[in-house]
This record gives sequence, structure tokens and C-alpha cells, in this order.
Amino acid sequence: MRVDVLFGYQQLTPADLTGKVVAVVDVLRASTTVATALANGARAVVPFQTSDEAVAQSKQLGREDVLLAGEQKMLPIPGFDLGNSPGEFTAEKVRGKTVLLTTTNGSGAVLAVQGARDIVVASYVNFSAVAAMLRTAVRSDTDVVILCSGHERRFTLEDAGCAGRYVRAIQKGLNEVATNDGATACALIDRKYGENIAKLLQDSNHGQALIGAGLGDDLAVCAALDSCAVVPVYSDRQIVPLGAGRT
Amino acid sequence: MRVDVLFGYQQLTPADLTGKVVAVVDVLRASTTVATALANGARAVVPFQTSDEAVAQSKQLGREDVLLAGEQKMLPIPGFDLGNSPGEFTAEKVRGKTVLLTTTNGSGAVLAVQGARDIVVASYVNFSAVAAMLRTAVRSDTDVVILCSGHERRFTLEDAGCAGRYVRAIQKGLNEVATNDGATACALIDRKYGENIAKLLQDSNHGQALIGAGLGDDLAVCAALDSCAVVPVYSDRQIVPLGAGRT
Repeated sequence: MRVDVLFGYQQLTPADLTGKVVAVVDVLRASTTVATALANGARAVVPFQTSDEAVAQSKQLGREDVLLAGEQKMLPIPGFDLGNSPGEFTAEKVRGKTVLLTTTNGSGAVLAVQGARDIVVASYVNFSAVAAMLRTAVRSDTDVVILCSGHERRFTLEDAGCAGRYVRAIQKGLNEVATNDGATACALIDRKYGENIAKLLQDSNHGQALIGAGLGDDLAVCAALDSCAVVPVYSDRQIVPLGAGRT
Repeated sequence: MRVDVLFGYQQLTPADLTGKVVAVVDVLRASTTVATALANGARAVVPFQTSDEAVAQSKQLGREDVLLAGEQKMLPIPGFDLGNSPGEFTAEKVRGKTVLLTTTNGSGAVLAVQGARDIVVASYVNFSAVAAMLRTAVRSDTDVVILCSGHERRFTLEDAGCAGRYVRAIQKGLNEVATNDGATACALIDRKYGENIAKLLQDSNHGQALIGAGLGDDLAVCAALDSCAVVPVYSDRQIVPLGAGRT
């Protein structure tokens, strides 16, 4: 039984993934956006690394069933229906829709971990739901990898802190859960900030950048622990809520 | 004024290096070995990524002036004079010699940061000497990058903790030193372990692996704060003590 935390998806090898449950974390903001969209009734979220790919895909689907969403350098993409602020993904806007999501870091991370046994999207807003799923995996002797997406190839405090919260939840009451150094460090960060998730996000470089870009309100949304009781799973190139019938 | 901590050298870009002072950390064990060898009178340490390159170089130099040293998968290399246990690099063995050093992670890191304004080799054993040099750089408005070598492409607790100690020393008494999230996290780790460096090394995956390989005695040597008052600088493909006349 083990839980490892990795930073950045660029250096993953197949051995990091095969047979494992991988949780992808991009707190600011892709993971939070995915969880919010699915909790509010979106049929699916389909991640793309570039806006061109998302637009091309939207033309193949019925336009009325689809929302184009995402960001480039934090800001909404001209001509898209939604940005990457999770608060925009209200039930009114997303219910029944397929969201084509382009983001800088999170989309790449989800696409990079194809080959894992299961892939889930993890954040603070869906913490308890995903943590329960990961605990179940570890208890049935399946190794868990938590992948911090990071920002432009770099370690981010908010993803590390969130990963640490998952590590601690997985370890709780279970002896003999082995960890790598990344997991040890992340658990330290979570322990340090405790319930003050808003402070953690404000202290992070990316949180500061969002505040500077006029998107500071997103931080409170991303810090709202357990506001979305959903386990987003990635399979067949789309992210759907665990337990949803495939359509 | 800023100090950033980066993890792993594989993803460095020229912008990370140009005009900056870069401190390369590989506590277990290359940084510690380099500092120990130079403090004990070695003329220079020349880093190599493979043992074949080191052997080829040794044949071009006078064999009596050279020591072949290093490790492969933690263990000494057959036919070499020394392994990578810093305790082996006594004054009796290394004084006046050029050490050709092959290590798994640290050598690659030093070679990867060529292009920086200055490159220094940092560890716990030469902490105060290197920290003073880095503080001087930051005070004269030169940015500092601390590169944690990591282990086989991965984050390591011991390098992060050591980097955090440098970050805190650089920040002390100086307002307005900006940091990246990596530096923030490392400072947290150092604060958590405090003076118990031996515990930090024992908790680390690599420390555990060294103990498992029968090299546990190396941990105490690597944890011996300020046992070597030397600033190893890398220039012209070799590492020499700062202030040493080039020969």
C-alpha cells in the first residue's frame, strides 16, 4: 500500500501509472472548475490542451449541446462561452451540456496520465468524495499517485497543500501506507495551513497572479472545502461523475 | 531581489540561469562529498555523468594526480579509488589531488546549470559559508536560484529541507526578498525539522535507501552542519574552492 505525490506531468513514465489510481490536482483552477461543472449537472467535461482543438471538436458536436470554456494565461478565450472561473459554471449554464475545456496546466496533466487504471480529478471543493474513493483503493491494495499539475512546469504551493490533505486522509487510521518524499512534504504543508485554505491560496504565486489579474474572487470558490460532492473520473477522453451512466 | 527553489534540472531553461547565482544541492551525497573533498585539500573536483567519461579523462591526466570517485546506484564503482561516501575523502587521501567524480544526480545538476553567472555547490556541511555568499549576491540585487538535484528525477526531502535553510538564511533581516512557491515550501520543511537534520535525512526515501545499502553512517556525515568552511564554485568544467588561485 502506498501513496506517492508527483510534481508536474512532463516526466511521468508508464511505470508511474500502470495499475494505479491517479488523482490529478490543479486547484487553481482546472480541477475546481471540473468538479463544479459536474456537480452542477454538466454531462461531461472534455479537456483540451489548445483552444483550436476544442473549437474543432465543438464543430463536430451539436453546438447547442456544447460549451466552449477555458483560459489562456489565466484570462477567458475570446469567442468562448465561459472562462476558467469555477463560479461561472452554474447549474443554469452547464446542466446537460458537454463542456470543452482548455486550460494551461490541468488539461495537459489529465491527458498525460492516460494509461492509469483509474483517473480522478481532485481539488478542495470535492475533497471528501475523492478522498473516500482513494482510501478505498489503498485499502484494496491499489497504489495511489497524486499528480500536482503545477504551473508552467513548476511546483505550486496550492496543489502541494491539497495533495497533502489527501495524503493525510488516506493515511488516517491505516498503518503501513508507504509514501514518497513528495507526499511527506505535502503533508507537512497541509498540516501547517490546517483549515486556513484561503490563506494557502493567497500565499501561492498563482493565487497572487490571479488576484493581480482581477480574478481574486476565484480563490474563495477554490478554497470552499467539500462544496461539490462529486468524483470526476476520466475515461474515453472525457470526464464524467463517478456512477453516471455513460451516454 | 529574489530567491527561487527549483526541483530537478531536467526542465531548466536559459532564463532560469542567465545572470543568476545558482546553488546546486544534492545533500545525499554529491554536494556533501564535493565540499568535504575541497575542505580537505583536494585541488579540484570534476563532475561526470558517466564512469566511462571519468575514466577517459583520467587517462589524459597524470594518474598520480587524479582520484577516480563516485557511485552507481549508491555503491562504489569497481576499479575506482573512492566511492561517494564523504567520509572517505580524508585529507590524507585527497590533498593536492584532482577528484574525477561520477554521481547519479548531482553531477548532472552541476553540468545542467552551465550558463549561470556563478555556480556554487551547497549542502549542510558548508552551509554558513555558502549562505554568506548567497546573501551577498541578493544584497547586491542578484537573483539566487537554489536547484535541488533530487533523485532519479524526483523531489527529495533532504534537498528541499537544505534549500529551505538557505532560503531562510537569505531572507533573514532582509525585507522584500521575493520567493517562488518552491522556496516557500522548502522553508516550511526546514522550519519543521529545525536543528534535527539527522532526523530529516532518516525520514527521507534516499536516506532510507542508503541505510538499506549499508551506508547509513554517511547520514551523520551529511548532517554535520558547518563541518566544512568552503564555498565550492564551478567554472571551466571543474569545482574549486572560492578564493583558490586557479592552477
